[in-house]
Amino acid sequence: MANPTTTRPKAVILLSGGLDSATTLAIAQDQGFDLYAMSFNYGQRQSVELESAQNLVKRFKAVEHRTVDIDLRAFGGSALTDDIDVPKSRDEEEMSSEIPITYVPARNTIFLSYALAWAEVLDSRDIFIGVNALDYSGYPDCRPEFITSFTKTANLALAATADGGSPLRIHTPLIHLKKSEIITRGTQLGVDYSLTHSCYDPIDGLACGDCDSCILRRRGFLEANIDDSTRYHPSAGL
Amino acid sequence: MANPTTTRPKAVILLSGGLDSATTLAIAQDQGFDLYAMSFNYGQRQSVELESAQNLVKRFKAVEHRTVDIDLRAFGGSALTDDIDVPKSRDEEEMSSEIPITYVPARNTIFLSYALAWAEVLDSRDIFIGVNALDYSGYPDCRPEFITSFTKTANLALAATADGGSPLRIHTPLIHLKKSEIITRGTQLGVDYSLTHSCYDPIDGLACGDCDSCILRRRGFLEANIDDSTRYHPSAGL
Repeated sequence: MANPTTTRPKAVILLSGGLDSATTLAIAQDQGFDLYAMSFNYGQRQSVELESAQNLVKRFKAVEHRTVDIDLRAFGGSALTDDIDVPKSRDEEEMSSEIPITYVPARNTIFLSYALAWAEVLDSRDIFIGVNALDYSGYPDCRPEFITSFTKTANLALAATADGGSPLRIHTPLIHLKKSEIITRGTQLGVDYSLTHSCYDPIDGLACGDCDSCILRRRGFLEANIDDSTRYHPSAGL
Repeated sequence: MANPTTTRPKAVILLSGGLDSATTLAIAQDQGFDLYAMSFNYGQRQSVELESAQNLVKRFKAVEHRTVDIDLRAFGGSALTDDIDVPKSRDEEEMSSEIPITYVPARNTIFLSYALAWAEVLDSRDIFIGVNALDYSGYPDCRPEFITSFTKTANLALAATADGGSPLRIHTPLIHLKKSEIITRGTQLGVDYSLTHSCYDPIDGLACGDCDSCILRRRGFLEANIDDSTRYHPSAGL
């Protein structure tokens, strides 16, 4: 754990345990922040994501890690939490043609609201979230205009900023990066991507290789010309 | 329970079980909505509030009632969830001079985010929240500008509205009303205020009569010239 006498500013990092949030964690550390990682247990069908988050927290020596239980399952409406089949082998056009069925209602709004609460208690003014506007164009709550609007709302909500304190910022260092650029940046910063998990539909804890998330990830490593250390299930045939 | 063949529009109502949210529930019903009530269990020191919510749901025949567990206690920072003493016998100037210690970080942002998720799943475009800008001027997330900004953020977040559907509205029917006006309106609509609970520091389930919330409530009934049916503890001396 970090030195308690540090005077580095605190940042709350939303950490799913995936490739994007792992890179975001590394970028926040590189920018000089003390890391307060926040994960969510929202009825995912896999717990391997949360294990990845715990490994990343150790690797990057976060000061604290909180995992918040959220009962999104109570509202239904998504393949990630329901029993709908995850789509496989789709090309990019199919992926971007519609809101993905893996969409979780209001997910980033809920996640950022919790980050906001923790930031206020920590007296932190910095939240990092690894949203990406390019690869996931189907998720409306990953768009820059959503983040800008949430930031404005957050600054109106907080006691600290309502009193005229310095404003809260939501950092989205990946928002305009391609997957390959994210992987290149993270590799420069020492991210071990074998610790991260992206697959929507893992088999025995290993990546399926064929869901939207696996396809984008595989192509990212290929385009970045970096060895893909992802642990794929033998059935993926990779 | 309501007739399932109804074609009335659905509204999600944030229902704490207090005087304000009970009145808001009655107003939403009066405006012709089917009621989907949402309450939160966030480590309140009293459960009497949630019992009040359940009684109101029965009285107003809500179609559904969801109670969401939220672990705000994990973040600390408020008298309502921590062991700090609730302030007593304060006059209005003292109440409005500072952010109240009963402030919960980002509370309304979190509550509205959950309401948003449920509204999306229900295909509802209407959320009701009983915030009041006058009596609780110390809560930044009760201000009209916060609600306006959250509404804009919500419409950017949702798949349904991102697709060009009709926009989500957040109704705040009490926002500019005095407590006495809220009580008058609710009484006209048949709210039985003995079912509601406002006290921050109840004694054996009965109102203390002397916390900020009890003081504002008592004065509201007095100014409205309506009998105060609140069940006060004998020690309140009322």
